[in-house]
Amino acid sequence: MRNRLTYMLFAAFVFLGSSNINSQNPVVGDFKPSSLNQPGKEYPQVNSEGRVRVQISAPEAKMVQLDIGAVKYDLVKDAQGVWTGESAPQDEGFHYYQLNIDGASVPDPNSLYFYGAGRWGSGIEIPAGDEEFYAMKNVPHGQVRELIYFSESTQSMRRCFVYTPPQYDKNTEKRYPVLYLQHGGGEDETGWSNQGRVNLIMDNLIAEGKAKEFIIVMDNGNWHMPERTRPAPNDTTKQEEKPKAWPPEGWADGFMKTMLEDIIPMIDANFRTLADQDHRAMAGLSMGGMETRIITLANPDVFSYVGIFSGGSISPDDVDKAPGFKENVKLVFVSYGSRELENPRSGLWGDPVENTKALNEAGMNTHFYVSPLTAHEWQSWRRGFYQFAPRLFQ
Amino acid sequence: MRNRLTYMLFAAFVFLGSSNINSQNPVVGDFKPSSLNQPGKEYPQVNSEGRVRVQISAPEAKMVQLDIGAVKYDLVKDAQGVWTGESAPQDEGFHYYQLNIDGASVPDPNSLYFYGAGRWGSGIEIPAGDEEFYAMKNVPHGQVRELIYFSESTQSMRRCFVYTPPQYDKNTEKRYPVLYLQHGGGEDETGWSNQGRVNLIMDNLIAEGKAKEFIIVMDNGNWHMPERTRPAPNDTTKQEEKPKAWPPEGWADGFMKTMLEDIIPMIDANFRTLADQDHRAMAGLSMGGMETRIITLANPDVFSYVGIFSGGSISPDDVDKAPGFKENVKLVFVSYGSRELENPRSGLWGDPVENTKALNEAGMNTHFYVSPLTAHEWQSWRRGFYQFAPRLFQ
Repeated sequence: MRNRLTYMLFAAFVFLGSSNINSQNPVVGDFKPSSLNQPGKEYPQVNSEGRVRVQISAPEAKMVQLDIGAVKYDLVKDAQGVWTGESAPQDEGFHYYQLNIDGASVPDPNSLYFYGAGRWGSGIEIPAGDEEFYAMKNVPHGQVRELIYFSESTQSMRRCFVYTPPQYDKNTEKRYPVLYLQHGGGEDETGWSNQGRVNLIMDNLIAEGKAKEFIIVMDNGNWHMPERTRPAPNDTTKQEEKPKAWPPEGWADGFMKTMLEDIIPMIDANFRTLADQDHRAMAGLSMGGMETRIITLANPDVFSYVGIFSGGSISPDDVDKAPGFKENVKLVFVSYGSRELENPRSGLWGDPVENTKALNEAGMNTHFYVSPLTAHEWQSWRRGFYQFAPRLFQ
Repeated sequence: MRNRLTYMLFAAFVFLGSSNINSQNPVVGDFKPSSLNQPGKEYPQVNSEGRVRVQISAPEAKMVQLDIGAVKYDLVKDAQGVWTGESAPQDEGFHYYQLNIDGASVPDPNSLYFYGAGRWGSGIEIPAGDEEFYAMKNVPHGQVRELIYFSESTQSMRRCFVYTPPQYDKNTEKRYPVLYLQHGGGEDETGWSNQGRVNLIMDNLIAEGKAKEFIIVMDNGNWHMPERTRPAPNDTTKQEEKPKAWPPEGWADGFMKTMLEDIIPMIDANFRTLADQDHRAMAGLSMGGMETRIITLANPDVFSYVGIFSGGSISPDDVDKAPGFKENVKLVFVSYGSRELENPRSGLWGDPVENTKALNEAGMNTHFYVSPLTAHEWQSWRRGFYQFAPRLFQ
């Protein structure tokens, strides 16, 4: 498996998507309640085109809008003061959204809530052709455990979630590898299980014999930027200043310290881990991928497997500056949603496709995955994780 | 301890409360952000009188209200379209609330969300004189684990949360007693940890050596009423019909079956439990207390300790009709918020004070607790649990 670069062609996946429908066409009427509605709620609904229909009673309001995918759609009021309306077709998978009532941005009172974009807000699920891999099935299920612990490096109480595989409490002599898995910017330690459904993906992979059993640790990677990159409080003259390079040098140092000095030792002390570099992985999405890149390049004696989902890539030049990385790291996995790679290809630290190809040609085991017809959203990361997990600890 | 009835006098606790303040007085200006705000949010705020102040931008709105404690308070708009206003003083502890924007009832976008009143909605915490017992402290913490399992009795996937005490994963030879702890109507399996902070209460009690270590299982006790008590679908003529007695006969049979046939065996199979009647307790609040009453009276060979928080009581007559209950059950604990017992005393199945006193005089070990100056709300149940837990498995 080493030295094999799997670069998936976008064209091969076009059949999976259904979102290339002109939003001016008549709306198809087969709306069904979203799977992420609160118990007993009929709205929001989704149709076979992937349109989202919301409804809310607001008899005295002048204007109500659905705000999804950075577009606001006007709702229409009926004689009873109930507003209804729908969006253009959305990509498959999970999306954040909100309502706007006479200028107030609020969660839809009918949906479940998720932490993203720096707030707890509404989420909706567009059914996907491949949704079986993250469906809740009658298979053995692992546990998602909420842990509270004191961190010396931050001098504060912290919280993390830990997934333990289905047999963890049965095979009490067995020790397990560990993946440290980070959320994106504006999200927190709840993202990978709530939006990402990572526990269900693992349960399904394990039930099918497609992945090794391992522990997953999901902690909070939010970190203040170094003082020098932020305007001083009340200094309005600097409000428009942006750091010249993002992320700035040293940006992830705080979280790296907490990861190495608090999180990993706490997990090794409280779980039956295989506490060595061979059996430790780190991955993350977006900001979490950027943290993964920085922390694993700086600590090739700590982690063996590296996963970066929509968060940059690693070049041969990066590796040349990181002694031990090339020799010790067994996999560099990089993924993006196909819409993120549309012309011009995005990517911090250079073109991720070219970087990964060059890293492979330089002798490292790499895997590049593209999620078909998805953007910088959770469906890309669910699929990325689904491709990543079977390649760990083999 | 058997045969000791502890009936606390309300008068002894008046000093703890501060809510008897005339809401017409000038508002005290010492507002601070609520401990249940979303990260970085300045509102809602609470002052030393227990008033709640909310703020939301809604430039085009005609009317915005704060809806808390069954009272709606008008907010006032400033020149920038930001609405601000406050409530009368609230009782200590946790309260659900919502905003009303031009007739739309929505969650406050600044608060954390909790499942209660049949919806995920806003919650606020009024600091309490005794809040230390449920504070997050730097003590050893247990875990709250999310479990997914298939239930034969309902033919569906279900979810529960399980609290394991701090040393559970360290003392791997030790087996533990189990408390089955139920939420109230309109709530779900998330209530006791999110609103009730039961994990923190247990961690603190254990750290102080005041309670035995035990496992707590929090499952979903919501259950459809028997068909005969509900109007037929689309039969609008019967919408106003109410069952003559509530709860109706057989109301908890479905959940009792799931508890006995699915939940308890699943827990005993997956945790290191002491799987006998001596080491099994059941308790619940409101509807969960009513379920506890019915299920424990029908199964005195299954449970040893019974806790009913704001959900009725057990009379000597009930016990006479339940063979084995008097001999086998080691504690009947009943609690209410003091405001629930104000004249006339509420209580399903008769006066809870008189019932519990009579049960004690009939020879059972009982404990009656009254939470000072609280109503049918979470502060009553946190305090009830705090009094109940140290009396278990002694």
